[in-house]
Amino acid sequence: MIDFDARFNGYVEMINSAAVKYLGKDTFAGRESSGLTAMLDAMAYSLHNGGKRIRPMLALEFCRVCGGNPEKALPFALALEMIHTYSLIHDDLPCMDDDDMRRGKPSSHKVFGEANALLAGDGLLTLAFETALSAPDMSAAQKSAAGLELAKAAGCAGMIAGQVMDLGNENKQVSLDEVKNTDRLKTGELIMAAASVGCIAADADEEKIRAARSYCADIGLAFQIVDDILDVTSSTEILGKPVGSDGENNKSTYVSLLGLKESKALANKLTERAKEALSVFGDEKEFLIMLADRLADRNN
Amino acid sequence: MIDFDARFNGYVEMINSAAVKYLGKDTFAGRESSGLTAMLDAMAYSLHNGGKRIRPMLALEFCRVCGGNPEKALPFALALEMIHTYSLIHDDLPCMDDDDMRRGKPSSHKVFGEANALLAGDGLLTLAFETALSAPDMSAAQKSAAGLELAKAAGCAGMIAGQVMDLGNENKQVSLDEVKNTDRLKTGELIMAAASVGCIAADADEEKIRAARSYCADIGLAFQIVDDILDVTSSTEILGKPVGSDGENNKSTYVSLLGLKESKALANKLTERAKEALSVFGDEKEFLIMLADRLADRNN
Repeated sequence: MIDFDARFNGYVEMINSAAVKYLGKDTFAGRESSGLTAMLDAMAYSLHNGGKRIRPMLALEFCRVCGGNPEKALPFALALEMIHTYSLIHDDLPCMDDDDMRRGKPSSHKVFGEANALLAGDGLLTLAFETALSAPDMSAAQKSAAGLELAKAAGCAGMIAGQVMDLGNENKQVSLDEVKNTDRLKTGELIMAAASVGCIAADADEEKIRAARSYCADIGLAFQIVDDILDVTSSTEILGKPVGSDGENNKSTYVSLLGLKESKALANKLTERAKEALSVFGDEKEFLIMLADRLADRNN
Repeated sequence: MIDFDARFNGYVEMINSAAVKYLGKDTFAGRESSGLTAMLDAMAYSLHNGGKRIRPMLALEFCRVCGGNPEKALPFALALEMIHTYSLIHDDLPCMDDDDMRRGKPSSHKVFGEANALLAGDGLLTLAFETALSAPDMSAAQKSAAGLELAKAAGCAGMIAGQVMDLGNENKQVSLDEVKNTDRLKTGELIMAAASVGCIAADADEEKIRAARSYCADIGLAFQIVDDILDVTSSTEILGKPVGSDGENNKSTYVSLLGLKESKALANKLTERAKEALSVFGDEKEFLIMLADRLADRNN
């Protein structure tokens, strides 16, 4: 049996080191300016602020299970985390969700002001493509194909469509299908892109890409459901953010639509189906199986 | 002698048709959602709202003078215009320049609300990379190299650094070098990227890329100087936007720093130097020579 925690922590370490490197001086040698310095401060504040690193980890692990060295996929893995981070910075802005706190620290616009937070988000989104298209160990064909997957997943037919729908769902009764569709776009697309870019970096075939994306779609949705469950069953101390916020915001959630018991059953069903999709990866699937279970059983 | 207007208008027509196509239904077949529909409305409102189309035109023409079919560079040309348009939408937001009007029409956030304008900007930036990396007539090597040029020019060491510096320059005395540095980043980088992507699409050599970028750097700076001149010498009717706004905003401009006569002389000097850089393109340079003169002599 593999040492899950060792591999998990190794990946987090890889990702955090790469985040420091790609926002570091060497990356921008010869392109210095006062504007760059201000931006890197704001971008680093959000990118280095914890997070579970699930998206980049999935890219690295899918590269590995498809026979590639995870290092190959590292620039694209980090690009995913940059895109995720930019979306959180923009989501927190006063004209969006107006959240003053993120992961227990003041949000970007509370620290750097709205204009710099807006631009830091723009900067992270753009740097995601710079980082990805600079990947030293991937071929031009791989970079071009994987870059296109990133853009589609993060774009107006993917994550951004989901953000628009999420804003529209506030303070009104929304059906289960609408909540699922919103989550599939808002968070699912980028998680599925993690599978795609990891597989592409390892030249995996279509069957493996399909299986990897299917696993990611299911654990992504299960993740959202568990989030909703924790919002009513956990405490602020354990969760690291205020509980009960969904109810206060009149948000339709899996729990409000299905009840607690049915929500837990659905999260479990999705987790089981995700694990079944991994059969194509044979013996290499163990970490991904355990990851799906950990995410379903988490308490924060 | 070439028919300048015919070629100019032909390019504008190509670019505007491509803008309609790339924001159209076929591009997003199988990826429909209510969020996408809302975003495409807001994105199209700004992308279809006139503009001189200088950046995409330069990409198309540099592809042609380097021996390529301009159609090859069209997706990247449009990507440049999408990036330019997103930067204007975000610039106009209340937390940035807070402009209610853009090219004689209400700004995006006045029509669609702040949240949708923010997301439409994000959507255009992301769609720029989707459009570019989907270019049907470019090789993976060309797409990957040209995509990297786009990301660098638009990113936190390029255009975004310039935007940060521009915000910092408000209401204070700024030196000529600081104004030049800000403009070089805020607008120059993306104009130079137009040269790069056009040349890359035609597999031009380093010498031609350098010459094309040098031309673009100089006409880009001349363009800014002429903008400042027109702000004090033109009328609101001819310019299509309020004149005298720089003085009202206490902005350091070329005119406030150099005076009108010296500013005109500098714009002319840059325009001449830009034209000299074109010698490497031989007989094909005629349109670019005339374009530099037209931009220097324009009255709006």
